[in-house]
Amino acid sequence: MNKKVTLTVQALQRMPYYLQYLRKAKEQGIESVSSTSIAKDLKLNDVLVRKDLAAISTTQGKPKSGFAVNELIDNIEDYLGYNNTMDAVLVGVGSLGRALLGNDEFEKYGLNIVAAFDTDESIVNQIISGKQVFPLKRLKGLVKRMHINIGIIAVPGEFAQDVADLLVGSGIKAIWNFSLVKLKVPDHVLVQDENLAASLAKLSLHLRDEMEKN
Amino acid sequence: MNKKVTLTVQALQRMPYYLQYLRKAKEQGIESVSSTSIAKDLKLNDVLVRKDLAAISTTQGKPKSGFAVNELIDNIEDYLGYNNTMDAVLVGVGSLGRALLGNDEFEKYGLNIVAAFDTDESIVNQIISGKQVFPLKRLKGLVKRMHINIGIIAVPGEFAQDVADLLVGSGIKAIWNFSLVKLKVPDHVLVQDENLAASLAKLSLHLRDEMEKN
Repeated sequence: MNKKVTLTVQALQRMPYYLQYLRKAKEQGIESVSSTSIAKDLKLNDVLVRKDLAAISTTQGKPKSGFAVNELIDNIEDYLGYNNTMDAVLVGVGSLGRALLGNDEFEKYGLNIVAAFDTDESIVNQIISGKQVFPLKRLKGLVKRMHINIGIIAVPGEFAQDVADLLVGSGIKAIWNFSLVKLKVPDHVLVQDENLAASLAKLSLHLRDEMEKN
Repeated sequence: MNKKVTLTVQALQRMPYYLQYLRKAKEQGIESVSSTSIAKDLKLNDVLVRKDLAAISTTQGKPKSGFAVNELIDNIEDYLGYNNTMDAVLVGVGSLGRALLGNDEFEKYGLNIVAAFDTDESIVNQIISGKQVFPLKRLKGLVKRMHINIGIIAVPGEFAQDVADLLVGSGIKAIWNFSLVKLKVPDHVLVQDENLAASLAKLSLHLRDEMEKN
């Protein structure tokens, strides 16, 4: 069923935007959509969009009517694996951890946070946004038993590597890292860094450049 | 004072890691550090680190003793503009907005959130993590009067473009966008997207690849 395609990282990163666009179109009762109008609405290059969608679509878009919205949604979801929900655990229930637990958007993108962990006695055993907080010492057992693949790290930097080691030792295959620490993990484990400090650096440089112009 | 250097995006993204590393070294009383040991500890390429630091440093690192920690911290902070604090406003005080307001780390990277805005009457006029929440209709006046340069968007996707338009109309020069919407803004405004959906897509693909191997 699944076409075996490899997209560039850039193309991959555009997929969630297409998906969001198509879901909105579907909600509005639109049944087919051309790559040209997608490109226009998302302010992307027309040729690029056509190429992205052709790579992912199981049928060709028709020149006039374009792509069937429902089918294209299925194709993208299949490609991204959103139909096999990605079960995850979250470590660190501070303000960032709570925000991640409370984010309804993630489920639309296939992520299912099944449990949270913390060492703080005052938080442990609470239910936050419908998820139970367990003591950290129970992580290994739970992750192994439930065959969880993803660990989300939302602890302060100084604890991040220890948590990563614990997750890796529990059999996790991918880490979503919200700490600022460069984690050391075995090759088969993917670390996806959310590097907010790097984003701030880019914003800062842009402002400096703008100031110098004026 | 400031060396006029242009780093690649990759080098720029490494700067916050160096900075964090150097600040920790300073805390531990370390006065000088070699690029080799930085590279080793951060698991980066030695030549790369030496090149990055040489670009940013006002003095050459010495072959034996390496770079002076204090000086290198100043150099990176100067380069990134962290010494001119970046004032920002935040729009959208939901769970993500609250987490951003409560994040103490941002100040270390120069970001100063001076006020928050929301349309929800039940939140307006509250103080959250020390910042006052104002009604959205007061945004334009406050941003103009205080010469704020950065707007942080933490509203649901369907409101993001309207908020961006409001920010741009108020004279903002950079937007930190936590919604999943591709924003349309004039060329002089930088949009830094925190695309969590794209990160999830990458995690998902990695897991699919790992499953296929086994």
